[in-house]
Amino acid sequence: MELISSDFRLEVGTRIEKIRSRMYDGAVDALLLASNSNIYYATGRIFRGYVYIPAEGPALWFVVRPDVFGHDPGVVMIHKPELIPGELEKRGMKLPESVGLEFDSLSYSDVARLQRVFKSSETVNASPLMRRVRMQKTPMEIEFMRQDGIHQAEAYRRFSRCYKEDMTDVQFQVEIERILRLEGALGFIRTSGNLMDINLGSVIAGPNADTPSPYDFAMGGAGIDPALPGGANGTMLKPGQTVMVDMSGAFNGYQTDMTRVWRIGEIPEIANKAHECSRSILRLCERIGKPGVPVADLYNRALEMAENDGLADYFMGHRQKAPFIGHGIGIELNESPAVSPKSKDLLLENMTIALEPKFVIPEVGAVGVENTYVVTPGGLSLLTVFPEEIQEL
Amino acid sequence: MELISSDFRLEVGTRIEKIRSRMYDGAVDALLLASNSNIYYATGRIFRGYVYIPAEGPALWFVVRPDVFGHDPGVVMIHKPELIPGELEKRGMKLPESVGLEFDSLSYSDVARLQRVFKSSETVNASPLMRRVRMQKTPMEIEFMRQDGIHQAEAYRRFSRCYKEDMTDVQFQVEIERILRLEGALGFIRTSGNLMDINLGSVIAGPNADTPSPYDFAMGGAGIDPALPGGANGTMLKPGQTVMVDMSGAFNGYQTDMTRVWRIGEIPEIANKAHECSRSILRLCERIGKPGVPVADLYNRALEMAENDGLADYFMGHRQKAPFIGHGIGIELNESPAVSPKSKDLLLENMTIALEPKFVIPEVGAVGVENTYVVTPGGLSLLTVFPEEIQEL
Repeated sequence: MELISSDFRLEVGTRIEKIRSRMYDGAVDALLLASNSNIYYATGRIFRGYVYIPAEGPALWFVVRPDVFGHDPGVVMIHKPELIPGELEKRGMKLPESVGLEFDSLSYSDVARLQRVFKSSETVNASPLMRRVRMQKTPMEIEFMRQDGIHQAEAYRRFSRCYKEDMTDVQFQVEIERILRLEGALGFIRTSGNLMDINLGSVIAGPNADTPSPYDFAMGGAGIDPALPGGANGTMLKPGQTVMVDMSGAFNGYQTDMTRVWRIGEIPEIANKAHECSRSILRLCERIGKPGVPVADLYNRALEMAENDGLADYFMGHRQKAPFIGHGIGIELNESPAVSPKSKDLLLENMTIALEPKFVIPEVGAVGVENTYVVTPGGLSLLTVFPEEIQEL
Repeated sequence: MELISSDFRLEVGTRIEKIRSRMYDGAVDALLLASNSNIYYATGRIFRGYVYIPAEGPALWFVVRPDVFGHDPGVVMIHKPELIPGELEKRGMKLPESVGLEFDSLSYSDVARLQRVFKSSETVNASPLMRRVRMQKTPMEIEFMRQDGIHQAEAYRRFSRCYKEDMTDVQFQVEIERILRLEGALGFIRTSGNLMDINLGSVIAGPNADTPSPYDFAMGGAGIDPALPGGANGTMLKPGQTVMVDMSGAFNGYQTDMTRVWRIGEIPEIANKAHECSRSILRLCERIGKPGVPVADLYNRALEMAENDGLADYFMGHRQKAPFIGHGIGIELNESPAVSPKSKDLLLENMTIALEPKFVIPEVGAVGVENTYVVTPGGLSLLTVFPEEIQEL
């Protein structure tokens, strides 16, 4: 089994250097990463274990499972983290004075255990550092996401064929899921934090679009059970409704996020108007979204456009409003930065963000477009190439 | 909107009392629950917020989102946890001297924030207490799981119709997923901890069954991408292979776990022998699995039977072995107790456990049966009623 291609070895080296450059800013001597997302970022694979990145010298992989690495000198098999300091000392590596741990994604118990493992070291929160490193993608990461966008669009092209009269939103979603999976979707959406439970995405239609949900998604929906209160809820699809489709673009370790809207029969003019407002917002963001621009500007300009069109009441929800119009995306669905008025971030080159200015029109459904972009000196470059108009089912 | 039926109000009351009875053991004055699983357990729904359970007096729901509770006196809308102590004082409730927080499921940062909120209180780990409470199900919880088992079996009945010649394991799984979803599966498997990434389950066939994975599942598989290294990997289904299907039984807030095996053409005698050994192990466990019996006994007797049949090499994996033959199950796929030789737990009435004595036969695939049971005074009572024989595709 080839563990890692030479191209990928180079890529991993680049990423470790990106992490290191932030470690000097943050003044930590080493990082110990243990979350699946950061292990994947730092190694290109998922294993149970830890990645140790000292400020100088090679990174070490401490692997609990699986035992498939042969005699790679960069890999140390361990059965518990308590063995890490001894293994470092064996290799003549000094224990760090300060070590960064992922306070925001590991459990309190896991961090407390690692603090006992490094009891002579100061421990600091490595999560903000890793979020900042991962915000700006490498060319290879952008290529992964470009591939996601192509697969996602290819699947979206086939969704309208799934529709039949007298169908519920759930039945429509199930056929969509099948097409996504046959196109290669992993069937799993990696998210950060514990505020998002999701299956393969969200399909919302008619009045269900205005049902508030506990989750950190832009849109709501009741879901089919109180245990998963979001998205499709069994609404019968019928004329006069919109069907908003916001389904998984995770075809590799990365993902794109794309929303398109279909309609059944004719829909009220206000819905069409709001949809066009969303598209105008995206056009503006694409133009102004250059490195150095405050992320909050995108939100503020979007809100202003919605207000100018008399659509503020419906903007980013109606009964419940999401306080953002977009989010960073990559390995996780919800990466930094949040495109919100509170953001202090500036857009940076090679950030990847999903923008989703959406509107909920009571009784009708949700409208608006979501695209995933990469930030370039010329503005936002599109990764989810697919017609934006509301299409008829 | 009816928030909660009167039956369910009663049920929630029962659960709160179960939690309280353990609080006296654990000597904490209050619990503050914030994980989705425990909020769902304590309230019958998922919201963003906190459930505060004092040792005496009514529980309070502190809700951030959604704002759908009207003027229920038991619900306090807040936008941040820092408001909780003030709200308690307003209601004449004393701040707790010690408060239990979920150290094992909340992030370090989230717990540290709550510790600052309750800065005058001692904080203790509430996760073990909640695991113990949730191990033994109420009659209503068992009824939820019985319904899961019925739906899961109904779906499994239709899987063989999905098979066509020249199909991969992934293609077969996609059709199975569609059937599960049409039967009402939520499409989302709630797990505990960060050691399980999963889509709708696992289908493993042929040599892929022997590929070790990082996850805490009984079986492995390479998956279709290094970002999700488990389960189906695109293996062509062909004669001489087994196809092990271990797919989601989550149709409500609970779930059952069931594995069945299909074969293509004839398979080697050793595979049939191992499958029958698995069934014999289950028959034994069903008989001896009574309240008071050490959980470890089930594992030890199973291993002994595998050894007696000369099958130890294949038992619970071949290249990589899982150190358990089962697990508690309910709201989460992986609840307590782990059915492992290290377990110190005793079986207790109304525990629900999945038992999955499995074997990996190199090149052929995996065999064995998984059932979900409830522990009764007469032994284990079956929740996943479906023929256990290897069926031909």
